[in-house]
Amino acid sequence: MSHALELAKQLIAWPSVTPARGAVFEAVEAMLTARGFTVDRFTAGEAPDGPVENLLAWRGEGGPHFAFAGHLDVVPPGDGWSADPFAAEVKGDLLYGRGAVDMKGAIAAFIAALDRVEQHTGTISLVLTGDEEGPAIFGTRALIERIAMRGLKPDLCLVGEPTSVHRLGDTIKIGRRGSVNIWIKVPGTQGHVAYPALADNPIPKLVRALARIDAVHLDDGTDWFQPSNIEITDLEVGNPASNVIPARARARLSIRFNDLHRGDDLAARVRDLVLAEAPDAIVTPRVSGEAFLTEPGAFSGLVAAAIRDHTGIEPELSTSGGTSDARFLSKLCPVVEFGLPNATMHKLDEAVALADLEGLTAIYADIMRRALG
Amino acid sequence: MSHALELAKQLIAWPSVTPARGAVFEAVEAMLTARGFTVDRFTAGEAPDGPVENLLAWRGEGGPHFAFAGHLDVVPPGDGWSADPFAAEVKGDLLYGRGAVDMKGAIAAFIAALDRVEQHTGTISLVLTGDEEGPAIFGTRALIERIAMRGLKPDLCLVGEPTSVHRLGDTIKIGRRGSVNIWIKVPGTQGHVAYPALADNPIPKLVRALARIDAVHLDDGTDWFQPSNIEITDLEVGNPASNVIPARARARLSIRFNDLHRGDDLAARVRDLVLAEAPDAIVTPRVSGEAFLTEPGAFSGLVAAAIRDHTGIEPELSTSGGTSDARFLSKLCPVVEFGLPNATMHKLDEAVALADLEGLTAIYADIMRRALG
Repeated sequence: MSHALELAKQLIAWPSVTPARGAVFEAVEAMLTARGFTVDRFTAGEAPDGPVENLLAWRGEGGPHFAFAGHLDVVPPGDGWSADPFAAEVKGDLLYGRGAVDMKGAIAAFIAALDRVEQHTGTISLVLTGDEEGPAIFGTRALIERIAMRGLKPDLCLVGEPTSVHRLGDTIKIGRRGSVNIWIKVPGTQGHVAYPALADNPIPKLVRALARIDAVHLDDGTDWFQPSNIEITDLEVGNPASNVIPARARARLSIRFNDLHRGDDLAARVRDLVLAEAPDAIVTPRVSGEAFLTEPGAFSGLVAAAIRDHTGIEPELSTSGGTSDARFLSKLCPVVEFGLPNATMHKLDEAVALADLEGLTAIYADIMRRALG
Repeated sequence: MSHALELAKQLIAWPSVTPARGAVFEAVEAMLTARGFTVDRFTAGEAPDGPVENLLAWRGEGGPHFAFAGHLDVVPPGDGWSADPFAAEVKGDLLYGRGAVDMKGAIAAFIAALDRVEQHTGTISLVLTGDEEGPAIFGTRALIERIAMRGLKPDLCLVGEPTSVHRLGDTIKIGRRGSVNIWIKVPGTQGHVAYPALADNPIPKLVRALARIDAVHLDDGTDWFQPSNIEITDLEVGNPASNVIPARARARLSIRFNDLHRGDDLAARVRDLVLAEAPDAIVTPRVSGEAFLTEPGAFSGLVAAAIRDHTGIEPELSTSGGTSDARFLSKLCPVVEFGLPNATMHKLDEAVALADLEGLTAIYADIMRRALG
């Protein structure tokens, strides 16, 4: 049985539905102390978004400092699996289990890869949270504070999210779009449709504001990012009576934006468009992440070279998809994300190919060797 | 005790919350047969909008034929009355009870007025339904079929709805706006906001369609009607997830229109505007009434003269407010609506002034004398 497979089975067997706590962290701590790491486990935050358990571990000292980041929590399995989602069973060429690709398989591969890089200069660290799939308020952000407190700032950070699409190695991520959600509430005065002069219908104001927003062209994309995009994701009035003019109307927007924008600026722009049509509207933005880009260069080249050597594939440098904790880590140092094929992530019967576990172990080991010279 | 008051108390005492059936019709039948009327009671329709009980009564024969129309059902009393809403109690100068003004009080006044017009030419008829406040599918419409079947088409029709506003006689209605409600459903393809190219968001299409509709100017009103008006009364998507592009979006419109328009034409116009932005939208109109106008002339002049003689007030000729069964009756003959002050209709502690009951009786008798002169 392969080494990475054994570790992955151990991690999957702990049903660490987000937020992850306790046993799965014990297991990782044991794996890392056995490999000469110093382990710092701590909890951060309070209800409702905490407490969250986190783990920081390091081996060696000084530079260069290479960090591997990830999460031990998994999304709920959902109903309808062919087998126990936490049994970690191998059937044919696949290991099944919630977290197999997102991302306990990658963590297992990285730990297995450590055994192939026993001698190295500088520092190797692991930055693992128990809350990436949940609110993510007290996870990687708290780890970044802990890193600062301990003076353990890395020079390069590899995030083990499942970035591969069709084949292991076909895609690495060098950036992510930012994300801002905006809630719009337009107040009015309720009344009877037969007497419109006595009422103030908020819906036409909201509709005109949304039509203005819909007409906005944010950009045409950049060398590394697709165009920024505004989606209106919800409308709500909740008026059951066909002869009543309602007292308020609401909408919700989701903007995914590239590195030409900042979340606060987009929120202000939307607010201006809304207030032009509905001066008494309430506009509530929530920026959940700024865009980031690790310009293609030494680090992405190093990761791509390791992939090419082991798979023969030239990985695409992508910035597509949703947000990840890389948005926080990018404030520390250049960040690249690379991991397993993501076809089954968050789905029923999540599974990783045994060959991909082995391949990822080899690539991670090669990346470490190249990074630590 | 006044005659109209006694009759009104009897009618209110039967708690005929819509749809009215049985006892209250028995009471009216007894009142009318005692006054020489032939009474035809019948039920129409089936569940869910029926069966509905209706009453057609007539005295005399040939022309001129004067009809009085109304309804014996009342809206539910609701909680919070100062006394039993069906006790029909007089306190001070007021008779309290659900239906006191809408419109058992007016029916009582008309029946009392009959005793003041015992000799007359032509025909007097009463057209009374048990479902005006409900779906109104099998009420006055069924009565109109019955009238045709019996060859009892009137020359003039007075509807006893509570049209007075501040004082008895200040307002009669010579028309009503039409009403059409329109439901719009725009289908799309659900998806993740991070991958908009894989989804088809229905909301922008709906918003653009509604912005077009909002910009429509139907008319500037006419001599007798205020401008027609489109209200967007509801928006609904029902998408709780901020990162999801929804699969459908819905809106509802309510149009109140004057006699420059027909409901079907307006529905077709809205459909065209919607389909221009959302070709696969589903547009479902429901015309609940066409506009009607009884041009000011002999009939309204006759009613106004009777009011002026008894109150000294020159009534305003109005077409404001919601719909009434006059919209159906207007297909038979000229229709005017005149009744009690409407301040307490559909409200808690509905009440009619005893003096208004007496005044209305005298006016109704005078209208009959003038009409059947």
